[in-house]
Parts: sequence; structure tokens; C-alpha cells
Amino acid sequence: MSEAVRGALWESALGRRMGDKREEVETVARTLLEAEDLVVVTSNEKKVKAVNEVLREFGMREARPADLPTDMADATPCPALFKAVMGVQATDADVVIARGRLGVPGSGAMTVLMDSRCRVLTAALSPPHPLHGMDVEEAVRRELREALSRVIRSKG
Amino acid sequence: MSEAVRGALWESALGRRMGDKREEVETVARTLLEAEDLVVVTSNEKKVKAVNEVLREFGMREARPADLPTDMADATPCPALFKAVMGVQATDADVVIARGRLGVPGSGAMTVLMDSRCRVLTAALSPPHPLHGMDVEEAVRRELREALSRVIRSKG
Repeated sequence: MSEAVRGALWESALGRRMGDKREEVETVARTLLEAEDLVVVTSNEKKVKAVNEVLREFGMREARPADLPTDMADATPCPALFKAVMGVQATDADVVIARGRLGVPGSGAMTVLMDSRCRVLTAALSPPHPLHGMDVEEAVRRELREALSRVIRSKG
Repeated sequence: MSEAVRGALWESALGRRMGDKREEVETVARTLLEAEDLVVVTSNEKKVKAVNEVLREFGMREARPADLPTDMADATPCPALFKAVMGVQATDADVVIARGRLGVPGSGAMTVLMDSRCRVLTAALSPPHPLHGMDVEEAVRRELREALSRVIRSKG
């Protein structure tokens, strides 16, 4: 992954970057599929179950929960990203899955997957709850499925 | 908006936050609909045209382009967010629209809408280009439409 990041950095610096390459997407997919220690930042057993259901669908290993005081993430501009960073710093996981507010109150939710160097691998969004009215496990499942589908070819 | 943010901060701090409220979503929508000076961080005329087409659909004012050296945003963990922050700092816009990479090379794209205090109002994602193959104006239109639909009730 570091090689992909360095390559893209130089392309950008030289004004030659033309967008994501197929090999780069494959590197992201490989990082997810080969992760051995996955953590999901939550203490809610139902959410952990929903997450693991979807991880299995994509041929990934199961995630273990990390119970962290994430309320404080809501004081940051992008709470979902910050929760993922907390997960990276407070565990030894290869990949951290976190869900939180996208931005301001009323901005809806984001599920984000981050590697052990706080690199954003993929993500997915949901509209604010008053607008979709989905129950939270269903929203967790839908977001994680979408986040993984963005970078991993489905087996179907 | 500051009131909504303060209220939600206290709810989180006291462990009483129960997710986005209808009034908060309306505050986000109002911020977008009432913005007088909108900026889109790009110098590409076709992208500006695509953006303004969608803003009109939602009853918003048109955006003017800001031509900034955004290649350096690719050196940050979330280039799309960083481009938006550059737009806030380098213009006097009420609302900044920026599109860039979500995370690592291969992680796909994000369109983000930010207010003048770098608050994230809404966003939308696309899969990496090798996987969707959409042309860039079509992707811009689709993402912006999705980002606005998350918080503004469509007029249809």
C-alpha cells in the first residue's frame, strides 16, 4: 500500500494524476481481504453481529468489538473518521471499522474502514435517520455492504 | 447552526445523544438553500456547469469556480475534505463544494459540501473509476444530487 500511496503522491505532485487505477483498487481490496485482526468500534452486540454477517459475505475475517468512549468524537468535524482514528490508536487491529456522524448534527451517518496507519480504505454514507427511518442494524449492514462493494468485486 | 452543534455536543457529552433530529436536518438544508456565495473548487468549466445544473434542480444559487492548487490535497488522508477546507480558507464563500479522493489511491471519490467554518454539511461517494467507468461530469452530477438529496427534500 505504501508503494501505491508514494506513486500517487508523485503523480499528483507532477500534475500527472489521472484518477484511481485498477491495481490501486486491488491493493485496497487485498488489504481488506487479508486483514487478520479486524476491530469494530462499538460495544453494541447487535451491531457487531450485523458487521460480521456482512464481512462473511465478502470472504473477510470476523471483527471483534472495541468498547471506546466515542461520545467525544462528536466534538470533531467528522465524527466517523475520528472514531476510526480512535480505534487505530487504541487497538492493535489491521483494519478498523467505525460508524458515526458524517459531519454536523443532521448530516447523517458514515461507516469508514481504516488501516493501521489511519489510511481511509473505503466508506459509505446514509441519510439522516429522520429521512430514512431504517433501524440501526439494517443501516449498519447496508452501509458496510456498500463500502465493501465499492472496492471488492462481489462473489455473486 | 452553532446552536444545533452546541446542543448536540452537550447531548453527546452527557451520553444522551439519540441520533440526528428532524430540526437539525432542516438546519443543514437551510444553510444550503440560503447560501448566497457558493464556490466549487475546480477550474474545469464542464464540472462547474454540471454542478450548477444540479444546484438549480434543488432551488439553490449557482456556484462560482475557485481555481486552487489542489494537487497537494492528495498528500492528506482524506483529499476531498482537505480540498473543501482549502476552498473555505482561500475564498469568502458561505458554502464550498469540493470533489476529490475519499482516501488512499484506489478508494474512489467523494463530493463534500462545507460551510464557512469548515463544518461538513453533507457528502456523497462514488466507487473507484475503473469499477464504474462513468464520465466525470456524470459522476459529479450524480454525487452532488445524492449529497443534496440526503438533507433536502426533493421538490418532485
